[in-house]
Amino acid sequence: MAKNKKPNKLKARLPRGFVDRTADDIRASDDMLAKIKAVYEHHGFDPIETPTFEYTDCLGKFLPDTDRPNAGVFSVQDDDEQWMSLRYDLTAPMARHVAENINEIQLPFRTYRVGYVYRNEKPGPGRFRQFMQFDADTVGAPGVQTDAEACMMMADTMEALGIERGNYVIRVNNRKVLDGVMEEIGFGGDEHAEARLTVLRAVDKLDKFGTDGVRLLLGEGRKDESGDFTKGAGLSPENVEKVIAFTQGTLDMENDGTRELDTMQAIFDACGYGEDRIKIDPSVVRGLEYYTGPVYEAELLFDVTNEKGEVVQFGSVGGGGRYDGLVKRFVGRDVPATGFSIGVSRLMTALKNLGKLGTDMVVEPVLVTVMDGDVESLGHYMKMVQELRAAGVRAELYQGNWKKFGNQLKYADKRGCPLAIIQGSDEKEKGIVQIKDLEEGKRLSAEIEDNATWRESRPAQVEVPLAEMVETVKKMLADQAADRDAARAAETK
Amino acid sequence: MAKNKKPNKLKARLPRGFVDRTADDIRASDDMLAKIKAVYEHHGFDPIETPTFEYTDCLGKFLPDTDRPNAGVFSVQDDDEQWMSLRYDLTAPMARHVAENINEIQLPFRTYRVGYVYRNEKPGPGRFRQFMQFDADTVGAPGVQTDAEACMMMADTMEALGIERGNYVIRVNNRKVLDGVMEEIGFGGDEHAEARLTVLRAVDKLDKFGTDGVRLLLGEGRKDESGDFTKGAGLSPENVEKVIAFTQGTLDMENDGTRELDTMQAIFDACGYGEDRIKIDPSVVRGLEYYTGPVYEAELLFDVTNEKGEVVQFGSVGGGGRYDGLVKRFVGRDVPATGFSIGVSRLMTALKNLGKLGTDMVVEPVLVTVMDGDVESLGHYMKMVQELRAAGVRAELYQGNWKKFGNQLKYADKRGCPLAIIQGSDEKEKGIVQIKDLEEGKRLSAEIEDNATWRESRPAQVEVPLAEMVETVKKMLADQAADRDAARAAETK
Repeated sequence: MAKNKKPNKLKARLPRGFVDRTADDIRASDDMLAKIKAVYEHHGFDPIETPTFEYTDCLGKFLPDTDRPNAGVFSVQDDDEQWMSLRYDLTAPMARHVAENINEIQLPFRTYRVGYVYRNEKPGPGRFRQFMQFDADTVGAPGVQTDAEACMMMADTMEALGIERGNYVIRVNNRKVLDGVMEEIGFGGDEHAEARLTVLRAVDKLDKFGTDGVRLLLGEGRKDESGDFTKGAGLSPENVEKVIAFTQGTLDMENDGTRELDTMQAIFDACGYGEDRIKIDPSVVRGLEYYTGPVYEAELLFDVTNEKGEVVQFGSVGGGGRYDGLVKRFVGRDVPATGFSIGVSRLMTALKNLGKLGTDMVVEPVLVTVMDGDVESLGHYMKMVQELRAAGVRAELYQGNWKKFGNQLKYADKRGCPLAIIQGSDEKEKGIVQIKDLEEGKRLSAEIEDNATWRESRPAQVEVPLAEMVETVKKMLADQAADRDAARAAETK
Repeated sequence: MAKNKKPNKLKARLPRGFVDRTADDIRASDDMLAKIKAVYEHHGFDPIETPTFEYTDCLGKFLPDTDRPNAGVFSVQDDDEQWMSLRYDLTAPMARHVAENINEIQLPFRTYRVGYVYRNEKPGPGRFRQFMQFDADTVGAPGVQTDAEACMMMADTMEALGIERGNYVIRVNNRKVLDGVMEEIGFGGDEHAEARLTVLRAVDKLDKFGTDGVRLLLGEGRKDESGDFTKGAGLSPENVEKVIAFTQGTLDMENDGTRELDTMQAIFDACGYGEDRIKIDPSVVRGLEYYTGPVYEAELLFDVTNEKGEVVQFGSVGGGGRYDGLVKRFVGRDVPATGFSIGVSRLMTALKNLGKLGTDMVVEPVLVTVMDGDVESLGHYMKMVQELRAAGVRAELYQGNWKKFGNQLKYADKRGCPLAIIQGSDEKEKGIVQIKDLEEGKRLSAEIEDNATWRESRPAQVEVPLAEMVETVKKMLADQAADRDAARAAETK
């Protein structure tokens, strides 16, 4: 259309960085979420839910690196002048929940949460402003056995989703080890908090930019392909190498951090989680400032082709760590906590790549077509639908303009209806119905290329007394299901 | 605490009008949502989902009556100056979705959606700014057989939730009937759209204010108990009586609206939905401006006591109607549609009142306690937990400070753990574990009032070889489950 017919016609459009979800997507994701939930529940975690909004000061500024600091969240000012923000993760709201109810909550508090989070970022390909996270946390747990459990639970979650051993690894490190390195390069103390964060975020880019790229980010800075320059941490070349050596595990040190990692490793060993599942790896740092101890990350190891056409490992689908200070902000005393977050959309993409995404067969409804639109007939057709439903058959009446019968069959076809029921006035007089097997028609048309032959072979259509409609439909659906099962069995042979 | 210890300690608090949800609440609501979903799916509806944000112009101004027009939604301005709003219902976003994808979507499009919606209203008791709706709509369906189906599906949904016949009714009316009344009182034509809406909203208050209150709202206006004055529609006394007569079904008329209601009634009759389930009722109008034909409402009939201590009917838990103009705003041509929305939180309150809310028994985890905190012991305890989990037992390690054993049992008790596993160094040497039956202890303490007797009766505790721990735990859990079943059976006798 070259021009609008109506000048005031609105353009229907999604806001940038947001998406609609289709039935297939929703069903696959529900299936995946149910599997994750089962693992968390089995480990003794219970659900809680917090609202979309929090007071901005309660959320705090704990966003992972954002292009636009202070602009990473969506905020509105309330009537009483207080600022509220949409949650950007599920950890900060949980810390607020625990602090607000600290006298009622029995610690350790083991909970999981699933929900959407929002980031006010520049949208881009694969970069959304609303996405789902699935978190599990233990609050009030000082020992690293809790971190060890979190790592094992992440490994169990990967396997529960069908990701085979060898295709994933949980990588573990400890911020306290890194703190030792920071001391060595003269970045200890509160006054260097900002500088430490720059180093952290540089190291966190190892996957993305490789060792050489991270060397630049630790030193003067790095120019990317588009010419944009990221200022570096300004370390001396000697200190850059110390940090690099640390990430490669060649910097010898012993401190609280390494001792905690030893304890975790002993627990992994005792429980039989080998290096093929959970691996201590000094290159893991996680970009968030608030971690105070162990940090861990679930990484998928199979190859995918990225947007530049390069073959790369799929990479991280979630991670977390210990954050002993988040609840303390509110209650003024130490409330040690650890937990992790899984990126649901990213995990779905991974499962799609692996062919492990639940494509739960939902049988589309049987369509009762409409041949006559008078009041009495409409009641009669609807009654047929209700009888099918009462017998457990997913069914519907054609709800469009009934006068074009071709549209009704086109609808049934596009919708994937397995059967269509037809009853014109002739059939009605005789007390019979036609049941058209649309699956049969599809199968035959796939087998028979020649149009004429197809016409001759004729899609199966049966004529039965109205009183036998329900039973015949059930029988035909059962036959179709058996055919599908046989086809699937043949495929996977 | 009289004063803050730290002046900069943050107060943890939920924003006004928002709530956290607990595990019981989430589980009960998941159970309810699954039942509603099953009904919708069975009727041939498929899920879709739209994001939390929409462009403000795409949402349009179709809010039900709000204290603060134009302020009923939460809005933020995007980088490119476009205004975005949080959805205030699930109908407007669905209309946008259909319009945006009108060339790919096969009409009639039968979908359901569940999700949170947001209202920027003054929060009050039971009045939340984030709440859940569960909608079903058919787009591209011109005939009132679709409206009839929607009514029957609402009735089926009520029964699927356990609300017995007689405790609910679906009330049906048609806006076109009311339009005839509007013509009669001189409120026809586009120029009276605003005035018609005032009349609609007045009639919609019948439940709340009774006939006399609505008379005032149709005339000069009504002062409420707090002294606030609501301006009326300004009808002459004669016209007020016409409208009242209409709502009471005593105004004789015949037009498109009454003919459509006749068709719907014929379908209800054919399908066996009597007046005890679906009832045509001229007092139903629905407060929304955009309805163009049949309107319908699911009402619960049992009595509850309201905040003023008065016994009233529970009232509406959802409703909807035909809105042929919503998609047309975008595509410029008629796209007839009808559907309804269920208020999930309100329905949950209703089910709680009726004792029909799923209190799905979730058995809390078996607790493995910690007697020694050295590295080797932690690994050993965690391995016991993992063995229980591997055998299908929900289990966890005590994750708090292990040194105060009393805290561990207190935790197990508050958490409702069914069993606690105890292994000190003595037991470890002997290769045995103690399994404490915490349900048994609870049952006895309920039966035995005297503290001394309770101590003598002793909660059951068994000592078994470590190798038999898993089997013994499973056996003890099974015994507890049998006890619970027996107790429930005795209760419902």
